[in-house]
Amino acid sequence: MIKPHGGKLINKVVSRKQAERILARLKSSPRLIIDPDSLLDLENIALGVYSPLKGFMDEEEFKSVTVRKRLSNDLPWTIPIVLALASAKTRRISRNAQILLCNAQDCPVGLIKVKDVYTVDKYKAAKHIFGTHSLKHPGVHKFYHSGDTFIGGEIWLIQKNKYPFHNFNLIPLQVRKLIDKRRWKTVAGFQTRNIPHRAHEFLQKIGLSLVDGILIHPIIGWKKKGDFNPEMIIGAYKILINHYYPKDRVIFSGLATAMRYAGPQEAVFHAIIRKNFGCTHFIVGRDHAGVGGFYDEYAAHRIFDKFPDLEIIPLLLNGPYYCKRCLTVVSDKICPHRDTHNVEISGTLIRKMVAQHRRIPEEYLRREVADFIYAHKDKCFL
Amino acid sequence: MIKPHGGKLINKVVSRKQAERILARLKSSPRLIIDPDSLLDLENIALGVYSPLKGFMDEEEFKSVTVRKRLSNDLPWTIPIVLALASAKTRRISRNAQILLCNAQDCPVGLIKVKDVYTVDKYKAAKHIFGTHSLKHPGVHKFYHSGDTFIGGEIWLIQKNKYPFHNFNLIPLQVRKLIDKRRWKTVAGFQTRNIPHRAHEFLQKIGLSLVDGILIHPIIGWKKKGDFNPEMIIGAYKILINHYYPKDRVIFSGLATAMRYAGPQEAVFHAIIRKNFGCTHFIVGRDHAGVGGFYDEYAAHRIFDKFPDLEIIPLLLNGPYYCKRCLTVVSDKICPHRDTHNVEISGTLIRKMVAQHRRIPEEYLRREVADFIYAHKDKCFL
Repeated sequence: MIKPHGGKLINKVVSRKQAERILARLKSSPRLIIDPDSLLDLENIALGVYSPLKGFMDEEEFKSVTVRKRLSNDLPWTIPIVLALASAKTRRISRNAQILLCNAQDCPVGLIKVKDVYTVDKYKAAKHIFGTHSLKHPGVHKFYHSGDTFIGGEIWLIQKNKYPFHNFNLIPLQVRKLIDKRRWKTVAGFQTRNIPHRAHEFLQKIGLSLVDGILIHPIIGWKKKGDFNPEMIIGAYKILINHYYPKDRVIFSGLATAMRYAGPQEAVFHAIIRKNFGCTHFIVGRDHAGVGGFYDEYAAHRIFDKFPDLEIIPLLLNGPYYCKRCLTVVSDKICPHRDTHNVEISGTLIRKMVAQHRRIPEEYLRREVADFIYAHKDKCFL
Repeated sequence: MIKPHGGKLINKVVSRKQAERILARLKSSPRLIIDPDSLLDLENIALGVYSPLKGFMDEEEFKSVTVRKRLSNDLPWTIPIVLALASAKTRRISRNAQILLCNAQDCPVGLIKVKDVYTVDKYKAAKHIFGTHSLKHPGVHKFYHSGDTFIGGEIWLIQKNKYPFHNFNLIPLQVRKLIDKRRWKTVAGFQTRNIPHRAHEFLQKIGLSLVDGILIHPIIGWKKKGDFNPEMIIGAYKILINHYYPKDRVIFSGLATAMRYAGPQEAVFHAIIRKNFGCTHFIVGRDHAGVGGFYDEYAAHRIFDKFPDLEIIPLLLNGPYYCKRCLTVVSDKICPHRDTHNVEISGTLIRKMVAQHRRIPEEYLRREVADFIYAHKDKCFL
């Protein structure tokens, strides 16, 4: 099986006993309430989703990742994982302090051993991460509005947070065990944040044609308004897989992490995450993790040229559409009629057809999935 | 660009001047008339199709290839390339003799510098090459009925033979130049000996989705009775590519070599040939180069595990069929309805429908290709 990024799956979950000891020791020490996205990142570090990270990035790692797109040990890494806090909250925090990290209910969920308290030039950093400074970019907007002080340091997970779809989130070790049990030698990872239409099915099935199994891995974390409701994504996928996929070739699970909408940088980040889950291949379509025209449609393909040492193999596929001449879903790599006969199958198209009470053709969306969407059309979108 | 097998494209074509000198020097020496398949092999050696071979195999190479599936220098090679002659014809031939090789019209086309005159245990060899001794196997039958004495030695091509579709056969150097001109970094090779139906299109388009261009490379050499007529294959492909492929992503050319029907061994051989033409990938479907149930349907996939040093990447794809539930061409890797809703699209099916004057549905065969077949239905098959 493919090794995790950096060679070893990180596990920073403490036992119940250790947790009790930590809590007793630090019961009167300062605590920090962290936001839901940072909670997800804390868990992802602890569960090996972000292997080889063992904590939130210190200033050196942050600089290395934003400027060089590599960790200081030279491993590819494109998205900074930081604990950002309002400066007012961080005044009392000093190096080497051990601080309990708490959820919104002030319940301790993790521990950080502070290595670094630092600030960064967010304007410069945004350009590196997102390729833009524009506040119209939802990732940039969020980054600017996050805390101004970053705390770096190793973490430990004391208690897993309960968030929706919790049981649906297999951790890397669980997925790796499943892959092993099914004797898959090759596994393609598929990232999504949409209900599955025929264009997604096309991409997934090209991937699956080449490998033993597929990990369909929708993101169940922060997303922008107007994106599909996670419940709908999960429900629609269950129906699709049940009717149209060989069940013994699919692992379906959610990935709890925030979307960054960082396009190419995030494509590499998504690939690294899937490598940690045991994927040997990762499907990258058109404008992966892109938003509002900020990225060239195949920038997220080209970026992989810079990372020949990534180990997970990117399957770089052009954007699918339905072709009225080819009578099937295709891409411009395999069809000469893009300019004359294409129907772009997209969330937007489906949203529009649902709003207009129009029947969505089977060529765009499987009948059973369409039925499901119509039955729940009031809660389709965030 | 990918290097030819063994690192260098072989060129054993002599100049006109050299040819004249050779012919003058050997005008009263013994000559050998060789059969059409050996003529093709002679040309393929000389033009680099079989790089790194520089001649017909001597006894050592023959043994190495049949037993070890590798040349004596350890390069993967699975099909012996031998000059087989009736013993009566070889009596006067001694080692180091230079002998003109002639076509059926007794016209000199090549020269061999004899290194070895040898006989082999054909019964044993057949088992190694074809996995069977059965005379029902067309490749074994042909091998048994070929000459009993093999002549090994370096060759030179004096004159290219004129055979049908001659101008349609691009040589490796020409294909490599085209690939270079089109700036393709990745090219998938597709082997065929059939008119193109939707199942072939499915395989080719999965391949093409992953690479910059495709070399559609039908075999135009000896084939068994009942196979498709080469003219029909060429005509049908031209129509298909013209209507349904992005033209700047396709190179369409014939490959003049005999089919051996050696299944897995031939799949590796076919891949090596396409590597010499500049392909980085090679599409291998179900029962590649198989015949009459002699091979397990995916033996030609598994054999590639033994050749991690092949360099050309095999794209191992399961056999496509039309699924009446998925409403498209699929394989059992991506569709759960194989046992209940599949239509096997095959040459046999199409032959049958043509014979019964039934309209072939667009789901099985493109309309324009079907029209072409109906218009020429009397000369479809060999």
